[in-house]
Amino acid sequence: MESTEGWTTEPAESGGIVERDFVVERDGARVPGVVWWPSDGPAERLLLLGHGGTTHKRVDYLVEVARLAVGKGMTAVAIDGPGHGDRAYPDLAGGLEALGTAWARNGGTGGIVADWRAALDFVEDDQGARPTGWWGLSMGTMMGLPVAAVESRISIAVLGLMGTYGPLADDLRRLAPEVRCPLRFLVQWDDELIPRDTCFELFGLLGSTRKTLHANPGAHAAVPVTEVVASVEYLDRHLG
Amino acid sequence: MESTEGWTTEPAESGGIVERDFVVERDGARVPGVVWWPSDGPAERLLLLGHGGTTHKRVDYLVEVARLAVGKGMTAVAIDGPGHGDRAYPDLAGGLEALGTAWARNGGTGGIVADWRAALDFVEDDQGARPTGWWGLSMGTMMGLPVAAVESRISIAVLGLMGTYGPLADDLRRLAPEVRCPLRFLVQWDDELIPRDTCFELFGLLGSTRKTLHANPGAHAAVPVTEVVASVEYLDRHLG
Repeated sequence: MESTEGWTTEPAESGGIVERDFVVERDGARVPGVVWWPSDGPAERLLLLGHGGTTHKRVDYLVEVARLAVGKGMTAVAIDGPGHGDRAYPDLAGGLEALGTAWARNGGTGGIVADWRAALDFVEDDQGARPTGWWGLSMGTMMGLPVAAVESRISIAVLGLMGTYGPLADDLRRLAPEVRCPLRFLVQWDDELIPRDTCFELFGLLGSTRKTLHANPGAHAAVPVTEVVASVEYLDRHLG
Repeated sequence: MESTEGWTTEPAESGGIVERDFVVERDGARVPGVVWWPSDGPAERLLLLGHGGTTHKRVDYLVEVARLAVGKGMTAVAIDGPGHGDRAYPDLAGGLEALGTAWARNGGTGGIVADWRAALDFVEDDQGARPTGWWGLSMGTMMGLPVAAVESRISIAVLGLMGTYGPLADDLRRLAPEVRCPLRFLVQWDDELIPRDTCFELFGLLGSTRKTLHANPGAHAAVPVTEVVASVEYLDRHLG
């Protein structure tokens, strides 16, 4: 395993957005990430983006959210989750069960929190500390809910498409009451992967006094574009 | 019973808003209402406001919604529901049971639809037909869901704080699939009057393909002001 840590590419500008890759080491593991910021320089607010299961840090829809966030004056950061993207385990197939195995190999929920802390530390060391939010659905909530629960630097979050369900159910149930920041929680009414009632249960457990659930008809991956756009506008209104 | 029909007061202007009372007759019953419009003349869009149980057409929060709507360039209309405001039955106390009795005396769900149609006809005859929306929570949804189900003039709605519950449960369950307009549906997570699960059931039954549920913590009457303001902004974006 290469021991490179820090920026791994030069800044690349396209369409008003600068993009640059990095790697941080955490307990011997390499955590690869990417940062997007406006072409006139790093923004004064930061948004952490958690990708969904079976995808990676640069999946199309996450790049779209990054683009929307940069347009609102935020720097955006994504990392590959355990078993995903450049951190794929060659012996593991996809699916929720493999996800649980990948999670366990990475040190469980404590490991994913440590990954994100290492990434946030790196970006703050390089560009400075700023008001910071979270945006992540599905596996992006399996990562983001624990991060928001224990990391006081997260002051607002968009979560959703996840319930008290799957390999992380116990951790999510335990940590949800520790989340205190304002948040918006998205539910897909006809979610074929995460039973709707378990999403409601998880929302109910979240400790935030300012929390709103938005539910739309449709399958897990069919979140309306208007809802995605509105979620970034929500972060824009309240972050910083 | 007085047989006055039409405007019953002169227009009264205050703070940029003109307000004028009217009465329409419907199958022998008098239905009193009020219209609010911008001081520079009736707006090009119309919003029907359904008040909640135990209140009336000019209850504070409804006047606030009217004010927000007029500020966005809408004319607003409210009527007293059966057994409420100027239509109170002296022998009936408050509460959900009395509400069912008042509803029945007024001709049931068909009666409330006819009341609103008479009011809308009157306002259209006087000021012209315009793109028309609905805003009404709790009893405002017991009125508005049936109106939206059978009245093609309603092109968008804000509903909520109601479920497959109470004296109108069967009518609401039956008519919900007939509602086809885009809508936003508000739920209070800790609603002590209308069980949350019955609200979810009613939302699920609504026939609209574009519908979004917004849920916030708190009791029945504790809808966050931000959610009320956002509901009028939603109507403003999509009406007309």
